[in-house]
Amino acid sequence: MELTGKQLIAGREVSSTSDSFQADNPATGRTLEPAFFEATTAEIDEAVAAALEAFDSFKSKRAEARADFLDAIADETLALGDEFLERTAAETGYPLARCSAERDRAINHTRQFANLIREGSWLDARIDLPDLTRKPIPKPDVRSLMQPLGPVAVFGASNFPIAISVLGADTMSAFASGCPVVVKGHPAHPGTCELAARAIYTAAEKARMPAGVFSLIQGRSHEVGTALVQHPDITAAAFTGSLAGGRALFDIANQRPVPIPFYAEMGSVNPLFILPGALKSRASKIADGFVAALTQGNGQFCTNPGLVLGNKSEDWARFSELVKEKVMAVAPATMLHAGIHSAYRSGIESRCENEALKVLGHSSENADDDKLEAAAYLFETTQQGLADDPTLLDELFGPCSTLVSCDGLEDMVAVAKSLKGSLSVTIHATEEDLANQKELISILQTKTGRLIFNGYPVGLEVCHSIHHGGPYPATTHSHYTSVGTRAIERFVRPICYQDWPNSMLPIELQDANPRGVFRLLNGQRTRDEVVF
Amino acid sequence: MELTGKQLIAGREVSSTSDSFQADNPATGRTLEPAFFEATTAEIDEAVAAALEAFDSFKSKRAEARADFLDAIADETLALGDEFLERTAAETGYPLARCSAERDRAINHTRQFANLIREGSWLDARIDLPDLTRKPIPKPDVRSLMQPLGPVAVFGASNFPIAISVLGADTMSAFASGCPVVVKGHPAHPGTCELAARAIYTAAEKARMPAGVFSLIQGRSHEVGTALVQHPDITAAAFTGSLAGGRALFDIANQRPVPIPFYAEMGSVNPLFILPGALKSRASKIADGFVAALTQGNGQFCTNPGLVLGNKSEDWARFSELVKEKVMAVAPATMLHAGIHSAYRSGIESRCENEALKVLGHSSENADDDKLEAAAYLFETTQQGLADDPTLLDELFGPCSTLVSCDGLEDMVAVAKSLKGSLSVTIHATEEDLANQKELISILQTKTGRLIFNGYPVGLEVCHSIHHGGPYPATTHSHYTSVGTRAIERFVRPICYQDWPNSMLPIELQDANPRGVFRLLNGQRTRDEVVF
Repeated sequence: MELTGKQLIAGREVSSTSDSFQADNPATGRTLEPAFFEATTAEIDEAVAAALEAFDSFKSKRAEARADFLDAIADETLALGDEFLERTAAETGYPLARCSAERDRAINHTRQFANLIREGSWLDARIDLPDLTRKPIPKPDVRSLMQPLGPVAVFGASNFPIAISVLGADTMSAFASGCPVVVKGHPAHPGTCELAARAIYTAAEKARMPAGVFSLIQGRSHEVGTALVQHPDITAAAFTGSLAGGRALFDIANQRPVPIPFYAEMGSVNPLFILPGALKSRASKIADGFVAALTQGNGQFCTNPGLVLGNKSEDWARFSELVKEKVMAVAPATMLHAGIHSAYRSGIESRCENEALKVLGHSSENADDDKLEAAAYLFETTQQGLADDPTLLDELFGPCSTLVSCDGLEDMVAVAKSLKGSLSVTIHATEEDLANQKELISILQTKTGRLIFNGYPVGLEVCHSIHHGGPYPATTHSHYTSVGTRAIERFVRPICYQDWPNSMLPIELQDANPRGVFRLLNGQRTRDEVVF
Repeated sequence: MELTGKQLIAGREVSSTSDSFQADNPATGRTLEPAFFEATTAEIDEAVAAALEAFDSFKSKRAEARADFLDAIADETLALGDEFLERTAAETGYPLARCSAERDRAINHTRQFANLIREGSWLDARIDLPDLTRKPIPKPDVRSLMQPLGPVAVFGASNFPIAISVLGADTMSAFASGCPVVVKGHPAHPGTCELAARAIYTAAEKARMPAGVFSLIQGRSHEVGTALVQHPDITAAAFTGSLAGGRALFDIANQRPVPIPFYAEMGSVNPLFILPGALKSRASKIADGFVAALTQGNGQFCTNPGLVLGNKSEDWARFSELVKEKVMAVAPATMLHAGIHSAYRSGIESRCENEALKVLGHSSENADDDKLEAAAYLFETTQQGLADDPTLLDELFGPCSTLVSCDGLEDMVAVAKSLKGSLSVTIHATEEDLANQKELISILQTKTGRLIFNGYPVGLEVCHSIHHGGPYPATTHSHYTSVGTRAIERFVRPICYQDWPNSMLPIELQDANPRGVFRLLNGQRTRDEVVF
């Protein structure tokens, strides 16, 4: 499939400027063809207008039809074949196996959303029946369910070019809810974005959806994203990326005359606590698991464990020695793009100069800057070191982590209290350790969206129960997740019908409950029909 | 019960400044004793610190214990007796019957939240069971449910001194979720706030809750509210009031280093559409109902119908004449306080001078400014008039409304498209009218949180299905409601437990499901226990 580098607006190829950019292969430095054109304000307006025009028709489709559209997207994603994976690999430096695993994840979540809306109970349909004899005033018939917000803007992440980009859960949950989507393509993988967009258009055609349900606009300047978030007809936006970028767009979304929700998943330090019993019995196994998690995807995961806490002891010293040896053996690997590479390098330099830290170890092999390679790094400090320099509690994106030696569990509690919001917190412990740490656990519950026991934060399970969110700066709104079926909640709001004629109600609120969804009927959860 | 005028911080009476203010009886101009002291920054810090200290203990209580606390609040609210209602009446100019009805509503929603958390399914507990044999990687055990955010700030409304103030659904839903509350008392009804606070403390003592679970701070300056919203340990805030006040605090909440959700319920114009069939068959009945809704509570409802649309016709002329006569017969009545009265007066003056409007009629009797009385006003205009001056689409708080004469249904659609977000939209129609208006209804669905058929927006039903929210400027976040049991969602977020030991899980996630709550088990809604 030939790439055009143009905006894809409701299926049309559009470009009206010569301002363009190209992707690079980070491992070779080679510039990849073709040039991609920077979206103009007029093109952004056109994409949002197409989304708005498609909204009424799209939201009115039966859930089954939207589910078929999602399944068609999954099919067409697979049909893109090896060409798609090869383009992604070239744009990211990822091995093909990683690209293939990401594609599997995207197909998986797309089908999950299809099944979610086929089942229908996610709509949270509620009915309170009337009572015309109630005193002093009759009780009306009140029914409510979720409805889609309108056109949604999506900003993908550079580190998941397939599973958190055009084909990510942001796009798919918005489609599932009935919202059209305008994606701002990531400038580091524009070709991957264009190929993915074409799969969506093929699916839209097969599933007879209006083409305006999706547009892809490209651009490397901040202006493109800003114009999209400021557009008066955009009703919500989802973003995965850096704290600086996410916060800037969050501020813009809130400062609009009509503010919109801006759901950003941003930085996270993902601390890993090792309690004494676990350290004693499993130091070597934890060292293996931790270094594998730290270096998976070359450390370019938002769930990368950036802090490891343990109590000073012989076991801790042994653990430190083990992880040091393992990190020294890590081969430097190519990072996603020059911006991430340069931020990692300067972050490492600044930590090397930081008096609160000591370098415990790093990749023995030199990193090749021409290949944008990153060396893995391990630092060490104490509870006092963290207290003296709170910037050490911030994420440094890449394969580096800091071991924090604590003088007893009070130190761990002090560190826990000082933590910022994080996507995940991991505890390695025996059940006995855990039972003795009620205070620590209670504090950690306030700091994260996911608590992991004797595992590792990378390799997120995509399911109904997952929560990939957490207090700021992990996200801008801790109520929401960007992964798992709950992600659909970001793009809907309740609407309530009072004394509305039965035949005019959304089908899930009609007396007969023809879709058999779970409803809250006079406060009781049931799939029964309403009988007067 | 003697009023002290002091801050009530975790049950202690505190004041450290001589800066004070007093409430007035709006109907008589009489100043009411005692003086209320302006909260200092140190006092606000003390209240939030007490809330934070109480949080861990409060959130760890069994749901049954928190439900008992809520029931005790309902009991103690009733036990405040007539003295409470008399103080409210003196501070608001409301008749005692209205105060009593508000108290009933507060008791009702307080018990509703008690029952909601006793039942427990609101927690949205989810379980995805593990599969250790899955390839390429084993599937972990993932479980999630809602947990409370932390200390919550509440700003009550002047127009509901009991049901949307200290004893409002904001406070009660936060308590139900497990969040401590700091209320900023409304300066127009500080005595009502203090009495209500004392009922909460008596209930906390009886139910053995930490006193820090609640504090009341008083103040008339913006600084008090600002300091509360900016406090780093406040995790969310709820507000009911004006667009200007709500937006200012929303901006402050978003500009914090760590932004927090600020849930404001603000202005709303609540348009009422009368379609031809209804106008023909029920003009007189609708005129009765509309004027009753317009003047209920002296028009001081956020659900007040501020725009009425109909097609030019003999029926519409008859309807206009009927409502004009009824409005002329409305006796001027006292408004809540001098600020609202003066805003209403200047709003009416400005509309009287507006060339896009004509005065259709107003209360024949003169309003007495010394008693802060408001005359009811009806204006008339056309679709073009609204298009020429979009400020007419904004709420003017008080007993006034504007009739919009439309040249056919296209005009109605044009007005619908131009509407800002509104808490409610009402349609009077025959079922045949409605079936012919799919486009109009589809537009209105995007403009409001509640669609009413052949009724009136005032007299909100407090139940599971109600949604008292809507697109901005009705609220700052259209996903949430401030009335009804769904209001609890504002103060919680999901937390996810991965491979967590069963005995250490929150009880609602444990295999045996001892509370029998509905859970999403591998995607299926069930109250079953988990059997491996």
